[in-house]
Amino acid sequence: MAMMTGGEYLASLNDGRRIFADGEEVKDLATHPQFATALDLVAGGYERHHRPGADAQGPYFMIPRSREELKDLLELLLGWDMVTVTTSQGLLALLTAAARIRPKSEEYARRIEAYFEYCRDNDLRCVQAITDAKGDRMRPPSGQGDPDSYTRIVERRPDGIVVRGAKLHISSAAVSHELVVMPTKKMKPGEEDWAVACAIPVNAPGVKIVNTNYAPRDRAADFPVSSRHNMPEGFVILDDVFVPNERVFLAGETEHSATFAHSLGLWERLGGTAHLAEYGDTLVGLAQLVAEANGTERVSHIREKIAEMVIYATLVRAGLEAAIANAEASPEGWYFPSELFTNAAKHYGAAEFSLMIRHLHDIGGGSIVTAPSIADVEHDEVGPFIKKYMAGKEVGDGEYRTRLFHAIRDFTADAYGGWQLVTMIQSGGGLYAQRLVARKHYPMDDAKALALKLAGLSKD
Amino acid sequence: MAMMTGGEYLASLNDGRRIFADGEEVKDLATHPQFATALDLVAGGYERHHRPGADAQGPYFMIPRSREELKDLLELLLGWDMVTVTTSQGLLALLTAAARIRPKSEEYARRIEAYFEYCRDNDLRCVQAITDAKGDRMRPPSGQGDPDSYTRIVERRPDGIVVRGAKLHISSAAVSHELVVMPTKKMKPGEEDWAVACAIPVNAPGVKIVNTNYAPRDRAADFPVSSRHNMPEGFVILDDVFVPNERVFLAGETEHSATFAHSLGLWERLGGTAHLAEYGDTLVGLAQLVAEANGTERVSHIREKIAEMVIYATLVRAGLEAAIANAEASPEGWYFPSELFTNAAKHYGAAEFSLMIRHLHDIGGGSIVTAPSIADVEHDEVGPFIKKYMAGKEVGDGEYRTRLFHAIRDFTADAYGGWQLVTMIQSGGGLYAQRLVARKHYPMDDAKALALKLAGLSKD
Amino acid sequence: MAMMTGGEYLASLNDGRRIFADGEEVKDLATHPQFATALDLVAGGYERHHRPGADAQGPYFMIPRSREELKDLLELLLGWDMVTVTTSQGLLALLTAAARIRPKSEEYARRIEAYFEYCRDNDLRCVQAITDAKGDRMRPPSGQGDPDSYTRIVERRPDGIVVRGAKLHISSAAVSHELVVMPTKKMKPGEEDWAVACAIPVNAPGVKIVNTNYAPRDRAADFPVSSRHNMPEGFVILDDVFVPNERVFLAGETEHSATFAHSLGLWERLGGTAHLAEYGDTLVGLAQLVAEANGTERVSHIREKIAEMVIYATLVRAGLEAAIANAEASPEGWYFPSELFTNAAKHYGAAEFSLMIRHLHDIGGGSIVTAPSIADVEHDEVGPFIKKYMAGKEVGDGEYRTRLFHAIRDFTADAYGGWQLVTMIQSGGGLYAQRLVARKHYPMDDAKALALKLAGLSKD
Amino acid sequence: MAMMTGGEYLASLNDGRRIFADGEEVKDLATHPQFATALDLVAGGYERHHRPGADAQGPYFMIPRSREELKDLLELLLGWDMVTVTTSQGLLALLTAAARIRPKSEEYARRIEAYFEYCRDNDLRCVQAITDAKGDRMRPPSGQGDPDSYTRIVERRPDGIVVRGAKLHISSAAVSHELVVMPTKKMKPGEEDWAVACAIPVNAPGVKIVNTNYAPRDRAADFPVSSRHNMPEGFVILDDVFVPNERVFLAGETEHSATFAHSLGLWERLGGTAHLAEYGDTLVGLAQLVAEANGTERVSHIREKIAEMVIYATLVRAGLEAAIANAEASPEGWYFPSELFTNAAKHYGAAEFSLMIRHLHDIGGGSIVTAPSIADVEHDEVGPFIKKYMAGKEVGDGEYRTRLFHAIRDFTADAYGGWQLVTMIQSGGGLYAQRLVARKHYPMDDAKALALKLAGLSKD
Repeated sequence: MAMMTGGEYLASLNDGRRIFADGEEVKDLATHPQFATALDLVAGGYERHHRPGADAQGPYFMIPRSREELKDLLELLLGWDMVTVTTSQGLLALLTAAARIRPKSEEYARRIEAYFEYCRDNDLRCVQAITDAKGDRMRPPSGQGDPDSYTRIVERRPDGIVVRGAKLHISSAAVSHELVVMPTKKMKPGEEDWAVACAIPVNAPGVKIVNTNYAPRDRAADFPVSSRHNMPEGFVILDDVFVPNERVFLAGETEHSATFAHSLGLWERLGGTAHLAEYGDTLVGLAQLVAEANGTERVSHIREKIAEMVIYATLVRAGLEAAIANAEASPEGWYFPSELFTNAAKHYGAAEFSLMIRHLHDIGGGSIVTAPSIADVEHDEVGPFIKKYMAGKEVGDGEYRTRLFHAIRDFTADAYGGWQLVTMIQSGGGLYAQRLVARKHYPMDDAKALALKLAGLSKD
Repeated sequence: MAMMTGGEYLASLNDGRRIFADGEEVKDLATHPQFATALDLVAGGYERHHRPGADAQGPYFMIPRSREELKDLLELLLGWDMVTVTTSQGLLALLTAAARIRPKSEEYARRIEAYFEYCRDNDLRCVQAITDAKGDRMRPPSGQGDPDSYTRIVERRPDGIVVRGAKLHISSAAVSHELVVMPTKKMKPGEEDWAVACAIPVNAPGVKIVNTNYAPRDRAADFPVSSRHNMPEGFVILDDVFVPNERVFLAGETEHSATFAHSLGLWERLGGTAHLAEYGDTLVGLAQLVAEANGTERVSHIREKIAEMVIYATLVRAGLEAAIANAEASPEGWYFPSELFTNAAKHYGAAEFSLMIRHLHDIGGGSIVTAPSIADVEHDEVGPFIKKYMAGKEVGDGEYRTRLFHAIRDFTADAYGGWQLVTMIQSGGGLYAQRLVARKHYPMDDAKALALKLAGLSKD
Repeated sequence: MAMMTGGEYLASLNDGRRIFADGEEVKDLATHPQFATALDLVAGGYERHHRPGADAQGPYFMIPRSREELKDLLELLLGWDMVTVTTSQGLLALLTAAARIRPKSEEYARRIEAYFEYCRDNDLRCVQAITDAKGDRMRPPSGQGDPDSYTRIVERRPDGIVVRGAKLHISSAAVSHELVVMPTKKMKPGEEDWAVACAIPVNAPGVKIVNTNYAPRDRAADFPVSSRHNMPEGFVILDDVFVPNERVFLAGETEHSATFAHSLGLWERLGGTAHLAEYGDTLVGLAQLVAEANGTERVSHIREKIAEMVIYATLVRAGLEAAIANAEASPEGWYFPSELFTNAAKHYGAAEFSLMIRHLHDIGGGSIVTAPSIADVEHDEVGPFIKKYMAGKEVGDGEYRTRLFHAIRDFTADAYGGWQLVTMIQSGGGLYAQRLVARKHYPMDDAKALALKLAGLSKD
Repeated sequence: MAMMTGGEYLASLNDGRRIFADGEEVKDLATHPQFATALDLVAGGYERHHRPGADAQGPYFMIPRSREELKDLLELLLGWDMVTVTTSQGLLALLTAAARIRPKSEEYARRIEAYFEYCRDNDLRCVQAITDAKGDRMRPPSGQGDPDSYTRIVERRPDGIVVRGAKLHISSAAVSHELVVMPTKKMKPGEEDWAVACAIPVNAPGVKIVNTNYAPRDRAADFPVSSRHNMPEGFVILDDVFVPNERVFLAGETEHSATFAHSLGLWERLGGTAHLAEYGDTLVGLAQLVAEANGTERVSHIREKIAEMVIYATLVRAGLEAAIANAEASPEGWYFPSELFTNAAKHYGAAEFSLMIRHLHDIGGGSIVTAPSIADVEHDEVGPFIKKYMAGKEVGDGEYRTRLFHAIRDFTADAYGGWQLVTMIQSGGGLYAQRLVARKHYPMDDAKALALKLAGLSKD
């Protein structure tokens, strides 16, 4: 019952978990190249947060109880590694769901609160496991050729349930402790077996995680961003996993099946918007730096594009501020951000993201993808030529400018950049989902009343 | 020293002012068709706000002293007629300028405060007169063929100055009391005569106002919006107008010449953003109403477009909330909105406005411009046919749907709609100006630091 | 059997037709203000084309028999009034439908050809009457509360049929001779009565046309475009109109019900694209002229916007050229443009039109809607001031620049401009329809083969 | 004087050239992992085209002499490797320049034609070397701190010149035979030393090429596109390279300095547009395939996005067709594509490319970046689970769908995808350059005449 150090965290992963990558089972996570950076990041987070004492608690277990605390949480979150972020988001999503289903099921709400305390007291890291395999998207879970296409209960025992299925896109699963499993969508009557939410330790028998990773494994100097920030993407197989009752948060109550996904969606999109706001600023910064290095920062069309990027970053941030300013309290006194503003901001930020990348590429020029490697910069014969010819304006030297191009390539036009392009669109459920939720939470009756008044068609 | 009633306001305009329209001088403003609606609106505003007593004051003279008061002001503003809005904006802009130039010129700041009190105590209506004729845009005021292309001081007397020039796009000038004259842009050393700000009564000798007006003058039933909301656009000629010293706020100090325009820009864009937020909601409401009347509100591509409109309206509002949440106090304790968020939100709202109109037209259909007139709907022979065939879904009847189309046409696809398309872009100085100001107030050094850190190029 | 002069055309309209406007029946079309411009335009067209002789024929009755002739036709079309354009489009659409249904119904094809010759030999003007009232859009014709919501056959007689319903958005109907009636969409088995295509003279008993018109009726100098180009929009009521067999082109064969609309769609979109290409060039020209008059034609962000407008106009024209270059011949040797390129170009041109208008407004400035009227320019006292202050760069004088602003306002930001915004989107069936048809005619199998090859998943 | 086989080509590279990569000099090009794919592609091209006989010639040396031949050339080009494409483009650009400068310099035109014949007769591969280091972009070549920032003549000898500088972004330089060197921009009087065009063999003394390459070097199964299509990007150092007179095409005549870049720009953009048209179709195909595999191909918002992609691909192709249909002949009878249509189409295709990628990512889903590797698909224990859970609709099996995701990731969201994002924008000179050239070649006077006529301001 205490916080873990980085070393304790690394040791804790040696728990029998079954991890696969590159066509083989990974016997020693700590030494496998696909996980090195992720483990460094997470262990570093433990080390940085660690405080001694039996009742020390990580700040990522904070439940915001005011708009100010919610704002503080978002600022802290930007400094955390991804698995710490998902721990906070996943548990807040569970608590949000608890608040929403408590009137119907006090028992599930109690279990969720107990689980939250368990994670907090043991300083565990959690990931949310939500997206199912889905099979044929046009058919419901019960109409699939393979009933396991959506994760389901295959056995109900007195002491718990047995679940089977797969959960996709589970970032960092291999380096965390807990899987927070939720239904991927609303289940209908008759689909009780697919209405399942629960918590599963990563090392539970039957859990197998296949990992992919976009990051380069060598030439770190040419990959200044992704060599320091990358996480494995987990394909989580639940091969008849037993879950004891105390960790079951939904087991057939279809009327609550969408509550978890909606709750998670809210927190994921809020966190996603916070990251988009920071990325927006980062893209502006990169654009300004590379324009200055090229000596084009006063060229009119370059300035215009940077101004558009400034407006983008500022509007995403405005959406975030409005989501917080319009946060509402649950009966428990927990503060949840505004669904409307969160979704609108996330949609805008994600939808325009690729245009901002285009602007950066337009400003930076072809050297983003053609700049020689740092190893060549350091070569005895050609290195001095590269430095000579890559020198731009007096800002920095040729090596500085070369490194800047590598950073832009790595961040926006290489494996990590491509991963970002996709995840910006897909995180929190895709653009379509964000439009749907924004419309649902919009005060349409007020808008219609405004329009009727304008048209002279109001009854009053 | 009291508030005016609507009748007192109308009487007050009979002050010798020289107003021109349709190729003639207007001898009786009150009975001329071009001004009828405007006078109704302004007189109605006086009547509604009127309270007896010598020290009663209109709420449009409020100086916000906290973020909450600033938010309240914006909500009030949406209910005011345009000339009341410009009174508030123009005087707040003057006070903002006073706060900024006070360290250099206590006297000008004092005169502005005295002028503010004069307007407030006499319940006057003001318009800001800023845009000059400009002549050849690529040349400075001092390099024009005609030195009057920018309004200038042609004579300096002991008791005041004489100004000459023209001020363009001065909405509602003919129906207000005071012209708040400001330089249209930054003047440089050597251009002292063009660095002039002052207040001029509309009926001052030498002032001539030529008016245009987009509004229809008959068939009000087919123009449900513009027949109730329209203002004359004034082309204000300053034909050697004398201004006493007490009303002169700048007379040659080129270093402060841009302060007035910047201050006004801030308040105009804030007010413009507030209106855009309301218009955004109104467009959503119209889109939803017409989709319901057509029976297409569940069609997927219609829902998607309405969702995009919802996101637009919500993001403009988010920008407004962030502009207020980040407002800052002057030494006087007056609250001014955030330049960055105000400009970013105004830019987004204005830039995407025409796309939202396109969505509405796409959703509504061709009847927006082809629906028969209300007079035809009421015709004995063809009226019943129109009602029969214009009936859509069970929402309302054929006449309701016809009126809805007229409202959409009038608001977005007729003279008033065209006026809106242009003024959304141009109000507060055009898209380019908003990009410029947003960039100027953006914390670029922070963005660069973020980017350098990402690139591994930070010094620390 | 000869071409008509302008005077003969005007006389021909005195044929008992029943026309309504402004809440009254119009007894004398020629003297009613709503129709004056339209009659001038059409009569002028007759006069210009007139050649004597019994076998003289208007060029608008040309059937293109090669790609070159198709290209010639499109160039001619840009010089015609709208009702001459619809005569050509409507008849070519009928012939296209004839070619498509001939294998199934030689008789209908024969009647269409005979009708084409009748119109040509008598030099008649036709409009296509397609859009039905539609009632509740989500319900089929047979499921409406009012079965007349879609035009239908209410009686079948040995010598012909009797039709009832309304046709909407029928531009110029009141000033043409013939209504070419077609089903608005595909009808299904059981909806035989709604599968009706035929030709109806405008003066047939039971036809009543209610007209609306966006154009101003006075101050022509302030409306240089719409005072010379406007047409009444007809709401056509078919109050049990008898159609003899020879003019019936479809009467129950639901399998051909969509053929007419598809054929018309193709020609309408082709003509629409030709107009968009010309409008694109016109918008570029206006933007360049106003930039030159303002003296901003060398300002970087102005140049960039004009370049974007240039690219827009050029791409619409490219689409048109590709539609012609890929035209295909029917068995009759008639050339029909490519569905794919026509729809893609029309979609692009229509979808981006409002952005081009925004660019023009951004470039032109607020004087687009605030420039004083020409009557004021001519006023003794204020006229000289307006000329003085509206003078821009040395291009033209103040009056020239004022007139330019009026042209831009009238063309893009007043009643005519609003009518254009809507009709650009809606003509030829709306953006959605163009996406649908483009996708339908796209060689998707080729694209999939390319993708499979790229992915290394080709079978071969 | 004959065509080379693949083997002869590989042998021809063993010519003393100095190639650098990964921080080392590459002693054996044929066995270095960075060049393997490129050599395979180029050698394969030689092998496929090879015909015996002394006067056999590669079709990539075709000079189009009609619009039909120009169209044929573009279709052939899509099947060539990149270095064969640049051979054709580079030489056609030289010939275009020859046609343009012939009236002033018959000698240079003659040398270019002789060089063309030399390359053709020896079946050589060429790359164009144009982009200079540029230093501070706001300063001219003669105003740089380092005069070598733009490639220049450092010595003029009776038998030739000596050049110094660097050329950037030279794709495939290391695997080709000839560098066609041109000035990167217009030089002014006084900048004669920088006005240099010439041809340099890759193995000429003083040439050093540093290479970078975006492609993965292992796990080809996860990179089905880039493992088969990749080229090294060359950073070409010209360390005092001697060029004999016969290979010098410009040496100080500043008035022709921009002719080469303009000529090359035309051909590069034409080729780029041809590739964009094919990529557009490929993206449509990938989108449709992944939608079918996911079972979402009938979902309305998915269909809408695919339709937008269809319209994009079709419009790019329309631009290409118009560029060819409007091609013009030089006095030599050589056909050059339309500058206007080529630049407009290239701009549109490049500017909207990132949006098309966004659509594909939106349609495909998160598995684009999270799908397990093919090695895992083939693993005994987890492979069957991956196949089971990656199975979508009945289209293909789980492995097929996994491979499809890898293709999309590799093509659009990994190193190769990022390289494409940048090069689509930058090839042919960046979006700004394309706007500039499109505007320059647009018939602006015609557009102004149209606008003046509309405004009623025509003189006639």
